[in-house]
Order: sequence, then structure tokens, then C-alpha cells
Amino acid sequence: MPLPTQPYKGARDFYPEDKRIQKYMFSKLRSSVEAFGYEEYDAPMLEPLDIYLAKSGSELVNDQTYTFTDRGDRQVVIRPEMTPSVSRMVAAKRNQLNFPLRWYSIPNLWRYERPQRGRYREHWQLNVDLFGEASIAAEEEIISLASSVLKSFGATNDMFEVRLNSRKLMEYLAKTYLSLEDVKALALFKLIDRKNKIDEQAFNEQAMELIGNQELVDKLASFLEISDISNVPEELKDAEGISELKTLIAHLASNPEIGKVVFDPNIMRGFDYYNDIVFEVFDTHPENNRAMMGGGRYDGLVELFGVEPVPTIGFGLGDATLLNFLQVHELLPDIKAETDLAVLLLDDEFGNSQSLVNALRSQGLNVAVDFSSRKIGNKIRWAESRGIKHISVIGQNEIDSQKLSIKNLDDGYEELIELNAVGQYLKN
Amino acid sequence: MPLPTQPYKGARDFYPEDKRIQKYMFSKLRSSVEAFGYEEYDAPMLEPLDIYLAKSGSELVNDQTYTFTDRGDRQVVIRPEMTPSVSRMVAAKRNQLNFPLRWYSIPNLWRYERPQRGRYREHWQLNVDLFGEASIAAEEEIISLASSVLKSFGATNDMFEVRLNSRKLMEYLAKTYLSLEDVKALALFKLIDRKNKIDEQAFNEQAMELIGNQELVDKLASFLEISDISNVPEELKDAEGISELKTLIAHLASNPEIGKVVFDPNIMRGFDYYNDIVFEVFDTHPENNRAMMGGGRYDGLVELFGVEPVPTIGFGLGDATLLNFLQVHELLPDIKAETDLAVLLLDDEFGNSQSLVNALRSQGLNVAVDFSSRKIGNKIRWAESRGIKHISVIGQNEIDSQKLSIKNLDDGYEELIELNAVGQYLKN
Repeated sequence: MPLPTQPYKGARDFYPEDKRIQKYMFSKLRSSVEAFGYEEYDAPMLEPLDIYLAKSGSELVNDQTYTFTDRGDRQVVIRPEMTPSVSRMVAAKRNQLNFPLRWYSIPNLWRYERPQRGRYREHWQLNVDLFGEASIAAEEEIISLASSVLKSFGATNDMFEVRLNSRKLMEYLAKTYLSLEDVKALALFKLIDRKNKIDEQAFNEQAMELIGNQELVDKLASFLEISDISNVPEELKDAEGISELKTLIAHLASNPEIGKVVFDPNIMRGFDYYNDIVFEVFDTHPENNRAMMGGGRYDGLVELFGVEPVPTIGFGLGDATLLNFLQVHELLPDIKAETDLAVLLLDDEFGNSQSLVNALRSQGLNVAVDFSSRKIGNKIRWAESRGIKHISVIGQNEIDSQKLSIKNLDDGYEELIELNAVGQYLKN
Repeated sequence: MPLPTQPYKGARDFYPEDKRIQKYMFSKLRSSVEAFGYEEYDAPMLEPLDIYLAKSGSELVNDQTYTFTDRGDRQVVIRPEMTPSVSRMVAAKRNQLNFPLRWYSIPNLWRYERPQRGRYREHWQLNVDLFGEASIAAEEEIISLASSVLKSFGATNDMFEVRLNSRKLMEYLAKTYLSLEDVKALALFKLIDRKNKIDEQAFNEQAMELIGNQELVDKLASFLEISDISNVPEELKDAEGISELKTLIAHLASNPEIGKVVFDPNIMRGFDYYNDIVFEVFDTHPENNRAMMGGGRYDGLVELFGVEPVPTIGFGLGDATLLNFLQVHELLPDIKAETDLAVLLLDDEFGNSQSLVNALRSQGLNVAVDFSSRKIGNKIRWAESRGIKHISVIGQNEIDSQKLSIKNLDDGYEELIELNAVGQYLKN
């Protein structure tokens, strides 16, 4: 029986035309984060299960990880997120590293989920983290950078919106304002995190179960409607987190490079390790109105590895959500093939043309050679199908004269060029 | 108990200084294969076990794979090699693709092996394949390309050697010259593949067990000593594979871009899918005398996916073996940090300097901002430790005057530069 040809469910094959788009996106991501002084790192695809058990949240670990036992009896996981790995790496060199660190990576991550639009079992994610800065200026840099990443693709300020919240404020809300004990507070946060996936009645019923007081449930519901930080109720004016949120929003609003910045008490972020400011960047396009980027402060993760704590803030951006954003806003350019010239040999004597082809490549040209024995018309159609713009038919005449006829397949224009000048000619 | 900080056994953490080297290597690999018209593709990290069972060889599949059952009860493998994945992709679009295809990838691969120098459980491998060309010109292109990859790092012709063999010749040798039946022929090939790992006596004993005739074992032993194809014994002069080997060696030897090319009947390559020419590129350095690249023709793999066969030849080059080669020949340059300038703020008011920093970045500069409240001496030491060559201390004066004092940390030279001219100044 023949072997099946489809890729693993929920994962993607990248044919050259797909990979070209990914390379374009990753190159823009790299240059825009490096503009802020961030340096790339990487970590292994496999990690011990333990590093996710601590703080990644039970849904991820219990239902969505690719976990197995290796041939040496170790329980390992294919990384579902990068934050525990990078925290491990920082902890391993806690005493040698000179903070602050500005680090980024574009790892592939695996989650066992039902595949749907913009959600795959294997996806790539830009991860950007700033280690060793406790001040709110770190939040400001990270959110400016997140915005700058989108702008580097040609996005304008109206295409996205930054939504901010504070885990500290939400803790205060749950414990002081709603008088919930720890376990119920955590359950309430998970409920808020799910709020846009369930209807209003279900939300109210489940909130009532946790809070047990209709007046407080109503207070919660109206709190969750607030989008201007100065509108929080009097009792929360001095709550923890409020002044940081105010400062941060004011600073971000004064930066003309950033789009709309709003307070959004519904932003929780799934991971248990966030402890202060959390944020998401939303696509404002009506057909794709959803979170693209998410992040926040997680000051307590590095210390789980037995070292002094390191204040940290970071965010992630998935490749599929970025692609959806670029497509829906028509920001994706036509990305051309890397090959500059197809050399079509008149006869199939490959060796004879070798020094001519070497000379073209030494001029910095990417040259594909068709040395097959098929008809020249087929060779031209092949070059077209590869997306190669220029061709040159080469026989003994061209090898002797050291002059090539270069044809542009787009407009049919043809010109005779000295071998040594072809690089210059095609680069102009 | 704190979590352990070391990476998974046999895998590597890439801190920025390590990743920088990998990025340098991958960038050279990409540009040198793209110079030959090759296009990048990628495939998922996980594949069904079946695609390796067919032709990858039992040692790899039974002892070295990371195999497990996913939450949907599928038996999956973390890819130990890329060839079955790319064959699957080609088969999936067999009828739409316009051959020949020139494809490459730099996947990470996993094998459960005992870690040792230059051998890791996770490694990256440049994979280059030419699909749809049956003529020996394909071998010539692929081996020229393999050589060109090494040359792009500054290698000279004397630093490496191409060793060629033919599976067809070896089949003929085993079946006609040594009169072995199929099973014993295969066992002999595995024995030859192991030959440099065991001593001469053990080799002769095991060969005797298979062949059962001392005269023939002696004939085999002297055959395996041959390095000049014209020295093969009279009875093998017309054997299958001989004329292709002769043509290929003559063509390659006439290309001044390629180093020494020899016939080596000991080259078998482990995978069962090779069916014709096989080759390895050896490092000639006395401290690292071993195979770096390996490849060959595998015309029968694509058809296992139920489509018409596609003649194919390809090779692989691992990141760790490449790094050893570059190190032992002192070809690895000093790779500098991507950050061009560290802006050290005199006070910790980040927002105030934002437009000045935006202006620097819009000039194409990579700028890291130190907005911490520590002393300026500590900020300078931090920039040094990050490998950043230029610094500029910024206070209200600089923001008002729009002039920056740029200091070179290497030689201490300092100059006052107009804000708008800093990009130009630092790029020169």
C-alpha cells in the first residue's frame, strides 16, 4: 500500500512559494526587533515536563502538550511555548549574565488542539523578552516594540489597538472588592479569560456561583465594561496596579508611533506566571477582530529554577495570526523567487558550460542551469513556472564569444551582454 | 525543589553569542545554495512512523528515533532525517510540479544517540535535493554545489576531498564477483559501512562468515583498497556503475572549483534508499579527518508514496560537523553583535527620549536604550558586555540640541554628530 502524502494533522508543509512568505515575515520580524537592540537565542525542541507543570496552566499541560517518555525514561515535552525554556536559560547563567538582557527567538511550538483558521498544531512564534528591568519603562519599550513590528510590515496606527490590564488590579478586585478567597479568585480569572467564548447568561451564572451575591456580580459586570482607566469606580481608585496603568497608558498615548491604547479589564492571558501588567494587541479589521499578540510581566518565573528572581516582561506573536493580519489588510507584497537567471543549455553537455556559469555566480547572481535534453520551449516554460524573470540560452557560440543574450520573460525584451557585465545588468 | 537548568541531554541551548555563529553559518549556506537556483522548503517536525520504516534502515528506526503515540492514537516520529519528508511533499504534488525541482532546507533533526564531539541528539542539517534529473549532470551539479558551499566559508581545495562510489557497482561486486545472494549482499554492505569502526581482523572474520571463501575475501579486501577507478580488476571493468563513475570523476576533476576527487569503494552511506552514485566529502585536516557531507542518488523513494518515480539526488551537511570544520581550519570570523549603538539615558525618564531614539532607528540603526537608574559607569560596562561598539550618553541637553556625542568603545574616540547624520556616521 502506498504511503500517505499529507502532512501530520494540523501541521503544514511549506513548499517554496509558502516558505518564501514565511522567510519574508521572519526577516521583517528579525530586523524590527534587532532595531531595538534585541539578540536572537534558541533552545531545544524537547524540554522536561516539569518546567511547564509549575506555571503554564493546567489546560495547556494536561490537554494540549505532546508529552512522551524517551528511551532513557525521561518524561519530555515538545515545547508548547518558549517562556519556560528562556527562563531556564537565564537562570542557568544568572550570575554571569549582565542585565538587562534583550532577547528574542522565533521557535516552532506544538499544541494538540483542534486545527482551525489561524490555529495549527505546529506554529512559529516570535518571542521577545526583556530581562532585568523592573520599571514601567520596560513595559513601554516592549509595547512600543510590539507596535513597531506591525508598522514594519506597512501597518498604520488604525489597523491595531493595544489593550492593557493589570493582574495586580484584578487580584485586588477579586480579593478586596469581591471578597473572594484565593481558589475562587483564580477560578474567576479563568472565567473572565473565557468570557468572549461563552454567552452573557452563562457568564453571569458561573460568576454568581463563585461570588454568591448578585449585587457584586453586577458590579463585576459593569467593571468589565470599562475601557477608560479614569472611569474605574471610586473604591478602586487607589487599588494596586491603577497608577502603573495610568502612567503607562499616558506614556504610550504620547508616542505617535503607536495606535490606540485602551484599558481592558477582560484581558487576563492564560498563563499562570503573569503577575502584573498584561496586554494584547488586537486587529481592528472587522473580518479579523481578535488578539494577535499577547504578553505581560512575569517576574517570578526565573526564580523557580533556584536562583535570585529577575524582573521580566515579554510578548509573543504567532506566524499564522500575523499572516491573517497581513492578508486581511492587504499588506503582503508579491515576493519574488531568489533565482536571478535561468541558463538554458542548447545541448546537454553540462561540463562545457561550467566556467561560464561559475563566472555568472561569482558576480553575485543566483543561476539555475537547465541541462536536460528536452526541447528549448519546454525549458522556457520551466523557467516561467519557477518564477525566474530572466533567461539566457547558451550554446557553443556563447561559450566562445563570452557574450550572452539575456531575455526578460515579463516583457520579452532581449539584449546581448558581455559575460562580465551580466551581474551589473541584472542588478539594475 | 528548584527546577533543573540544564538543557535536555545531547541538545544545546543557543545563547546569543552561540546563535550568532549559527546565523552566520546558515546565512552562508542559504546564499551558496541559492546561487545554484535552489529554493527553500520546510515540513513539520512530526511525521508518521511509516515513512521511515520503508527505506531509512533498521538501526535508525528501531534504536535512534523519538517515536511516540499522540493523543489521537497516531504513531509519530520527531523527524530523524529530512529525505522521507521531502519525498512525501514531492509525491503529494507529483502532477502539478514542473521538474526539475531544486530544493533545500535547514531542518532540525532528532536522533537518540550517545552524545559525543560533533554529534548531538538535536542537530540542524542542510538538505539539498535535485528532483527530476536522471543524467550524470545532476551528480555533477550536486557535488559542485557541495564543494561551493565549503568554498563560500573560505575553504580552499586542499581542505576537503570528495569520495565517490556506486551502489550499482557494489551490487554487481556482491552478486556477480562474490556470488552472494541478496540477504548476504545487504549484510556485506552493512559490514563495509562499519569497516572503519572495527579492526581488520574482525572485518575479515565477519566477511569470511558471509562469503565463506578465503580467496574471495582477499579479493574483496584488495578491492576496498582501490582509490583510482582505472585500477579496478579486469573482471569488474565492464561492471554496472563503472562508466558513470569514470565520467563523473573526469568531469569533476576538470572543474577548478573542486578539490581532490577520488573513488572510494568503502563509501556505502547508511540509508537503504540509495541506489546508484553515493558520495561523501571528507575533511582532510589531520585532527578532524572524517566525513562532513554525505549524499547520493535515491531514485526509488518518491514512488513509495504511490506516484510515478522521480529520479533524485541530494546531500546533507550537519551544523556541528560544519562548525568543527570551520574551527579546525580557523575559518570562523569574529562575528559582531547586531546592535549598532547603545543609548545611555542620564536620567530614567524614558518617554522624554523616545522621539530621539525613534529618529535613530528610522536611519536604519539598531539601538538599545539603557533607561535604568544605575550609575553611568555601570551602563557603559553593560554596553561593553553586550559587544556594542558605540555608545551615546543622552540627557536633556542632547534632546534640546539634537546633537549626540558618539563614543567608540574600542578606541575611545568621541565625536559630536547631528542627530540626522548618526546613521550615515556609524555605517561608514
